Amino acid sequence: MAADRVAARVSGIADQVDAALDRLLPTGEGPEVRLTDAMRYAALGPGKRLRPFFALEAGRVLGADEGATLAAACALECIHAYSLVHDDLPCMDDDDLRRGRPTVHRQYDEATAVLAGDALQSAAFEIVLDPATHADPAVRAELGLRLARASGALGMAGGQMVDLTGVRDDLEGVARMQRLKTGALFAHAFEIPLVVARADEAAWAALTGFADDIGLAYQIVDDLLDVEGTPEELGKAAGGKDAALGKTNFVTLLGLDEARRRVADLADQARARLDVFGEEADALRASVDFVLKRRS
Amino acid sequence: MAADRVAARVSGIADQVDAALDRLLPTGEGPEVRLTDAMRYAALGPGKRLRPFFALEAGRVLGADEGATLAAACALECIHAYSLVHDDLPCMDDDDLRRGRPTVHRQYDEATAVLAGDALQSAAFEIVLDPATHADPAVRAELGLRLARASGALGMAGGQMVDLTGVRDDLEGVARMQRLKTGALFAHAFEIPLVVARADEAAWAALTGFADDIGLAYQIVDDLLDVEGTPEELGKAAGGKDAALGKTNFVTLLGLDEARRRVADLADQARARLDVFGEEADALRASVDFVLKRRS
Repeated sequence: MAADRVAARVSGIADQVDAALDRLLPTGEGPEVRLTDAMRYAALGPGKRLRPFFALEAGRVLGADEGATLAAACALECIHAYSLVHDDLPCMDDDDLRRGRPTVHRQYDEATAVLAGDALQSAAFEIVLDPATHADPAVRAELGLRLARASGALGMAGGQMVDLTGVRDDLEGVARMQRLKTGALFAHAFEIPLVVARADEAAWAALTGFADDIGLAYQIVDDLLDVEGTPEELGKAAGGKDAALGKTNFVTLLGLDEARRRVADLADQARARLDVFGEEADALRASVDFVLKRRS
Repeated sequence: MAADRVAARVSGIADQVDAALDRLLPTGEGPEVRLTDAMRYAALGPGKRLRPFFALEAGRVLGADEGATLAAACALECIHAYSLVHDDLPCMDDDDLRRGRPTVHRQYDEATAVLAGDALQSAAFEIVLDPATHADPAVRAELGLRLARASGALGMAGGQMVDLTGVRDDLEGVARMQRLKTGALFAHAFEIPLVVARADEAAWAALTGFADDIGLAYQIVDDLLDVEGTPEELGKAAGGKDAALGKTNFVTLLGLDEARRRVADLADQARARLDVFGEEADALRASVDFVLKRRS
C-alpha cells in the first residue's frame, strides 16, 4: 500500500477520534468548566492519534466491532493526553510547548494542569466502562483492567518514575524503561481490538509481538529525533536534550548507525509477524514505515 | 450503641483496610520502587478510613459480600489518597504536613508526588476491576464506572477546580462545591455495598440520602474545625485558613451557631433515613455522632 494511502487512513482515523472525544469528554456547568476546557485543550489538540490508528487498523484485521474499538481507543488517548500534561509540568520535564502550542500549565496554570490530567484519567475509565462502549460487561471490565495496568505503577507511570530516577546505565535498563513508559500503552492499543474481537491465541501472539516491536522501534526513533531533530521540526526544545541532561538513551548507548539498524530490523520483524493474517493486514504492514519515518 | 463500641468497629475496619491495601498495592522490581514506596506512604499512612467504614457497615446492613465490599472500598481509598497527595502539592494547597507526617512531595519530591497520585488512581481501577474483587464482571464494571464518575470532572476533580476558582459567593455555590469535591466519594462509599448486594430501590433511596446528609454535615464540621481547630489537634496548619484566604465556606456564610444547628439537623435526618432497616442499622445509626463529633 502506498505511503499516501496510509497517510490518508491515519488522518481519517484522527478525525474520527477527534469527533468521538469531543462527544465523550465531559462539559462543566459551573466554575468547573475551566477544568473541562483544559481537558479538551489537552485531549483535542493536534496529534497523530497513532494508538487509535493501530487499534482500529488491527480491529479491521480481526473483525472487531468498530464502535467499541473507537471508544476504547478514545479512553487510551485520554490516558496518553493526561500523561503528556503531567510530564510537561515544571516539576517534571518543564516544557512550555507541546506540538507548537503552549502546554496546559502555560495556557492555564499549574493547578489546573494537575487537575486536568487527573480528570482525564478518570474520564478514560468512564468512557471504557460505559455500557455504550460495549454491551458485554465482561468486555468492558477486561478493557478497563488492562488499561489500568498499562497506565499504572507497573506500566506507564512506573516507566516515567524510572526515567526520572535516571537509573538506566545499560541497554537492558533503557529497554525496560521503554517497555513501561511507552510500550505498555502501545501494547494496549492492540489489546483493545483483541479483547473486543475475542481473538484467538495466534492473533494475540502476532499482534502483541507486533506491538512490542513497533513500540521499541518508535522509542529508538524518538531518541534519534532527540539528536537529529530541530526545534522547528519538533515543535519543542530539541538538540540532544537527553545527552545534555546526561541521560542515557538508545542512541547514546548504541550510536546512530546501530540505532538506525535496530529500527530497520524491528520493522522487518514486525511485518513478518503479520504473515498469519495474509493480505488482510496489508494496511497495518504498510503503516510500519509510515510510523517509523516520522519527523516528529 | 455506645460510642466506644463504634470506635472499636471503626478502628477494626481501619486495620482490615490497611492489611488489604498492603496486599493490593503494587510493589516495584526496579527503580520504580521509589514510586510504589511513595504510593504506599500515601495510602497506608494514618487515617480514619471513614469511607471504607461506611461501605462495610452499610454492606453488613444489606448483606453484601464482605470481600468484594472491602476490595472496592480499598479502591475508593486509593482515589481518596491520590486526591490528598495532589491537593497538598505546592501549586495547590501547598501543605507540608498531613496528619502529622510530611506530605508526599516533602517526604519524596514534587515529581514523585504527582506520579504517585497518578498511579494510585490507576491502582484504584486495577483493584476494582480485578476478577478477584467480584466474580460477576457486571458488578466490577458498574463499580468501576461509578468510581470513575465520582472521581472525575463532574465529581471530585471538578469540585477541587471549583474550590480553586473561589467562585462560590452564596450557600448554593458552596453546597454545590461540597457535593462535587467531597460528596461524590462519600456517596460512592454507599454505592459500593448497594451495587455488590444488588439492593432494591428503597435501600438505594435510604442510603444515598444518608450519604448526602452525612457528607454535607461532615463538610460543615470540617469548616467548623477550620475556625475552631488548633494545629496540634489537626496535625496541619489551622486557624481559619479559608477566612484568611478570603474564601467563603459554610461557617463564614452561616455563622458558627447556625452551622452547628445544621449539623445537628442533618444528623437527625440521616438517622431517620435508616428507619427502613430497623435494628439492623443500629451500628450505622450510632456512627453518625461518632463521625460528626470528630476533632480532626
